[in-house]
Amino acid sequence: MGSDRAPAVEVEGGVAACAQLSDDDTIVLVGNKPAIQKALARQKGPQDKIEIVHANQRIGMNESPVESLRTKPNSSIAVLAQLHAEGAIEACISAGNTGAFVSATQMRLRRLRGVHRPGVGIMIPTLHGPVVLCDGGANMSCRPRHLYQYAIMASIYMETVYGVKNPRVGLLSVGEEDEKGTDLVRAANGLIKRDSSIYFIGNVESRDLFHGACDVMVCDGFVGNVVIKLIEGMSGGLIRDILNNLKDLTTSTPELRQIAMRAAGQTLETYDFNQHGGAPVLGVGGIVILCHGANSCLGMTNAVLLAHKYARHKVNQRITERLTQDERTGNG
Amino acid sequence: MGSDRAPAVEVEGGVAACAQLSDDDTIVLVGNKPAIQKALARQKGPQDKIEIVHANQRIGMNESPVESLRTKPNSSIAVLAQLHAEGAIEACISAGNTGAFVSATQMRLRRLRGVHRPGVGIMIPTLHGPVVLCDGGANMSCRPRHLYQYAIMASIYMETVYGVKNPRVGLLSVGEEDEKGTDLVRAANGLIKRDSSIYFIGNVESRDLFHGACDVMVCDGFVGNVVIKLIEGMSGGLIRDILNNLKDLTTSTPELRQIAMRAAGQTLETYDFNQHGGAPVLGVGGIVILCHGANSCLGMTNAVLLAHKYARHKVNQRITERLTQDERTGNG
Repeated sequence: MGSDRAPAVEVEGGVAACAQLSDDDTIVLVGNKPAIQKALARQKGPQDKIEIVHANQRIGMNESPVESLRTKPNSSIAVLAQLHAEGAIEACISAGNTGAFVSATQMRLRRLRGVHRPGVGIMIPTLHGPVVLCDGGANMSCRPRHLYQYAIMASIYMETVYGVKNPRVGLLSVGEEDEKGTDLVRAANGLIKRDSSIYFIGNVESRDLFHGACDVMVCDGFVGNVVIKLIEGMSGGLIRDILNNLKDLTTSTPELRQIAMRAAGQTLETYDFNQHGGAPVLGVGGIVILCHGANSCLGMTNAVLLAHKYARHKVNQRITERLTQDERTGNG
Repeated sequence: MGSDRAPAVEVEGGVAACAQLSDDDTIVLVGNKPAIQKALARQKGPQDKIEIVHANQRIGMNESPVESLRTKPNSSIAVLAQLHAEGAIEACISAGNTGAFVSATQMRLRRLRGVHRPGVGIMIPTLHGPVVLCDGGANMSCRPRHLYQYAIMASIYMETVYGVKNPRVGLLSVGEEDEKGTDLVRAANGLIKRDSSIYFIGNVESRDLFHGACDVMVCDGFVGNVVIKLIEGMSGGLIRDILNNLKDLTTSTPELRQIAMRAAGQTLETYDFNQHGGAPVLGVGGIVILCHGANSCLGMTNAVLLAHKYARHKVNQRITERLTQDERTGNG
């Protein structure tokens, strides 16, 4: 639970996901039991794969993560993390307070062996195909070796879950030359470059995101979060603007306006975060999928399918194998 | 000189600007004299306010700034900075290699008294009116007091040149709460907050840029540059995408396509950087306007008018007065 329209979208999205899961899969809905049951009663699909675990507290979107976890041990987020840590579930998904969810899961699930700091891998839809940006906001005090590990973890994620062979990795900077950017970026560039297992294309600029320059874009969590929120704010703003202009120009011809709306709608769909469902926290000791508070039912369904794919492709096992190999060879 | 289409746009833009300047103003075109004369011969407007200073070297867009200034003392950028330092001109404008232009002018003109580090003030057009972002890319290793001074300098710029009374200042972070973000952002928040002469609305997020939340957005030069280039890449990409969709949907009705193109064109115009001409380096000991390499004639004309306005409103004098006052009171 936890989205802006909880529990409706979680319940409907979960029921819709059931049809696409295997017989031995179960979806556990964690939250206010009566509310979930009420929402389930409105669903038409089969509910045999659904279980409910009651959680009687709720962490608001603006509550302090650490403080709220301390005072609300029975919040759906805390219970979710606890269930995962106990092995009762194999993955957890939430559209609630992101900071609280990341804190709770890091606290309960720790890090995968070999990982210095987890990072969020956010899929950005572009006209040239999806790009994974890492870190999208988990790590505000990045070191070069964190960025180096993000390059590796996001590459594994891109390759296994999205089937992109040998993903091209770009390091976000303010120019293509190696010496451009901050001390952090320069040091990370050096670390990533010397690892021949990474298909590193060098520094990239933010505008390259939309030009198909790379499949993975690495940056610190502050910059990543600024990028994600800017794309969100701008795509909405620009499209609204064009629609307004179209409206003014087509007042006398409604059929024309319809066509124009469809064109803008198609573009909006390309950039719709619901297409990808959610973003995994790469490097945490479990499967943790963060969802947007405004996720739709489709978004929730896709988040479940993403978690499923993430488990099936053994992403975490691959990350640990790769990064403990680094430990042995002295890299990172 | 120095734009992608130099010297044509500089010459045409300069001649067009003449008509809007006072009788005692002069525009000095610095670059290859024969090429400039050839371009001037094609212009119809009066050229009595135009002078030419010959510079026989050219710094390419991808040359190393410091190295190129050393080896090319007769480049238009080096000559421009020298002319300004000697007092032969009151402002300099270039669409050439940004790094070289910033380096040359900082080297020759130094900083205004009281300023720790200059920052670029970039005007971002939005539906809710323009927002100045500072720093747009001059300072890659910002300290809290640099961000604090950017808040002051950009406020003065916004108030004098754009006539926005008491501009609202936001500090770019990953959440509105004071404790969100990096150590740098938290420390800068504290510094800006305690100065009651700044209309500080607190932390803002990148998506707020398009919601009219603030008139000035403060951030470090790395983040600022990422933001600017992302907006540039995305506005182009999104609009191209919508146009493509419209094309597919309107193949049978050309008049409809025309209307759609007009709507998208209006939006593109709103976001066109040429509307603002260029971006001043705030805090440098002179008037230095950076232009986009792809500037049009209109962009060059607007850059000249911006420099003129900047001089007329005594922006630099106000900055020095304000920041040396800080020195006396122990702020900053």
